[in-house]
Amino acid sequence: TFSRGMQTVTIIPGDGIGPEISSAVIKIFEAAKVPIQWEERNVTAIKGPGGKWMIPPEAKESMDKSKIGLKGPLKTPIAAGHPSMNLLLRKTFDLYANVRPCVSIEGYKTPYTDVDLVTIRENTEGEYSGIEHVIVDGVVQSIKLITEDASRRIAEYAFEYARNNQRASVTAVHKANIMRMSDGLFLRKCREVAENFKDVKFTEMYLDTVCLNMVQDPTKFDVLVMPNLYGDILSDLCAGLIGGLGVTPSGNIGANGVAIFESVHGTAPDIAGKDMANPTALLLSAVMMLRHMGLHGHAKKIETACFDTIRDKKVLTKDLGGNSKCSEFTAEICRRVQDME
Amino acid sequence: TFSRGMQTVTIIPGDGIGPEISSAVIKIFEAAKVPIQWEERNVTAIKGPGGKWMIPPEAKESMDKSKIGLKGPLKTPIAAGHPSMNLLLRKTFDLYANVRPCVSIEGYKTPYTDVDLVTIRENTEGEYSGIEHVIVDGVVQSIKLITEDASRRIAEYAFEYARNNQRASVTAVHKANIMRMSDGLFLRKCREVAENFKDVKFTEMYLDTVCLNMVQDPTKFDVLVMPNLYGDILSDLCAGLIGGLGVTPSGNIGANGVAIFESVHGTAPDIAGKDMANPTALLLSAVMMLRHMGLHGHAKKIETACFDTIRDKKVLTKDLGGNSKCSEFTAEICRRVQDME
Ligand SMILES: CC(C)[C@H](C(=O)O)[C@@H](O)C(=O)O
Ligand SMILES: CC(C)[C@H](C(=O)O)[C@@H](O)C(=O)O
Repeated sequence: TFSRGMQTVTIIPGDGIGPEISSAVIKIFEAAKVPIQWEERNVTAIKGPGGKWMIPPEAKESMDKSKIGLKGPLKTPIAAGHPSMNLLLRKTFDLYANVRPCVSIEGYKTPYTDVDLVTIRENTEGEYSGIEHVIVDGVVQSIKLITEDASRRIAEYAFEYARNNQRASVTAVHKANIMRMSDGLFLRKCREVAENFKDVKFTEMYLDTVCLNMVQDPTKFDVLVMPNLYGDILSDLCAGLIGGLGVTPSGNIGANGVAIFESVHGTAPDIAGKDMANPTALLLSAVMMLRHMGLHGHAKKIETACFDTIRDKKVLTKDLGGNSKCSEFTAEICRRVQDME
Repeated sequence: TFSRGMQTVTIIPGDGIGPEISSAVIKIFEAAKVPIQWEERNVTAIKGPGGKWMIPPEAKESMDKSKIGLKGPLKTPIAAGHPSMNLLLRKTFDLYANVRPCVSIEGYKTPYTDVDLVTIRENTEGEYSGIEHVIVDGVVQSIKLITEDASRRIAEYAFEYARNNQRASVTAVHKANIMRMSDGLFLRKCREVAENFKDVKFTEMYLDTVCLNMVQDPTKFDVLVMPNLYGDILSDLCAGLIGGLGVTPSGNIGANGVAIFESVHGTAPDIAGKDMANPTALLLSAVMMLRHMGLHGHAKKIETACFDTIRDKKVLTKDLGGNSKCSEFTAEICRRVQDME
């Protein structure tokens, strides 16, 4: 089922508003004549041999083949011991870099303008090791695991990213004043890698100081690289600066081109199926995906159509301050894409 | 040296601009006729028996007697293995609660107005345990330690604080979706304590979600309680919302009334001794101290004089947007305090 010249992308529509926003993206891609074909897969966690949680084999096989996925929101299972589907996907495909560009959107008012930064989060270890113990009754320890290899790998990714995207600086975010050995190791690897990227400015900053400076003047920041938990925090903070998770794209990148792009907002069950959802975050994630695949022309066209629609303020979904339906917002972007032909 | 009716407070002027801003506070307290006497002590880390770092015995004895300290910034020693003086002080006196009220200051422009929240940070354990190991070459673990006792203690402090300060709600900030056992324990204790404070609303929220919502609308938040590292991050973020560490007070509270109030900004060596420093953070910390000591009338008077001076914009230090000296800003606050007699 792989046609000539067409790349296949695995699409995981997800739960709640997932199917609606996924079909919005598919429509816009059609309008833009993007040379990809979709392979749709559902992802729910299943119990594999030995009681290990895994994603369904059809989804795994599709991803193994296509290497590229686009994913809507997945509901968080409530069963005890059930892993987060997002974490399970990151783990299954060793998607070690979580990349979130945060760019102010013209016409969408927030307390900040001219934000243009990228958080790059180590996605595989740190505080997310999952190793915890009860030492004695009432005393619990969680283990934060930092390795040389994962630290070097993410630092290299960040510097490569900066270089390839004409970004001037990389800031390593850490608390090595407190976690001297673990964050110390992370920081040391960043410093070492920085030596090989003399064209990119390197700075280091405490996480608390970054947060303080971020809310005072986010325009000071460029590319930020950090361990897992700090990235979880900082990427959400930065998303808040530009309008929230409804407009912020995200990509999870692994080795050999494997990647899953996803909107990181929730499933919004209250508005699911009502043609009210905002597909922007998933669409901008899909634009990131196109760039990852080298389809820069299509990426630019779709991105421009999306931003122009928001700037014009005429056809906006409710959360963006308008009163249009998801389908109307989608149609408006399609129209603009077609006008650019 | 303890006179009748006068409480003694240990003052630790600190380094850099510390002495200037400390004497500014002393002058303003004199103008307001605050019934306390100061006992000045220096704090530098010294090596005690067995090579253990400790604070000088004269400082320790003064604090043991007075129970209350006011502290300017201390420079971070660069010697390897040397502890942060702030951490050493928190540890020496078991100051388990770090309290930072963040309130928008009229006349001092930031992207936000009407911020009025308090971060309450567990100050003794969590990621600050200091326990780290190299497992094998290139693999390091840091241990986050959460105990039932410390979690219950900080939760109780937060709810008592809310009740005593007419605050409507307490939000527990956590990542129990990831650190299920450690943050799970912390959260469980918060829930249990909440049961005893039915007059205070209790909510719980993920740290990343708090950060996102905080930069979008900080007015949604009231009292926030959280483990050590999350408090480090969130207290700085919130300070950023109202103008930074130069205007944000802080208190470290222990058992039996023991407490140290401190400005959490740096020593600013570049402007030290030049009569340019802004004493606001230390002064507002001293105001917190007065409330802690039950001297509410004096607290109100000094706080009002400080806020009025900032709102009027006529006599401001450089960092606040003016061109007055520290001594002029101080004199202006003294004048206003005396006018209120
Ligand atoms: C869903 C959750 C487990 C996840 C995380 O904590 O990493 C989310 O907050 C994210 O940032 O992708
Ligand atoms: C000085 C440093 C060790 C300290 C911390 O990390 O707790 C500081 O950032 C603070 O918030 O008081």
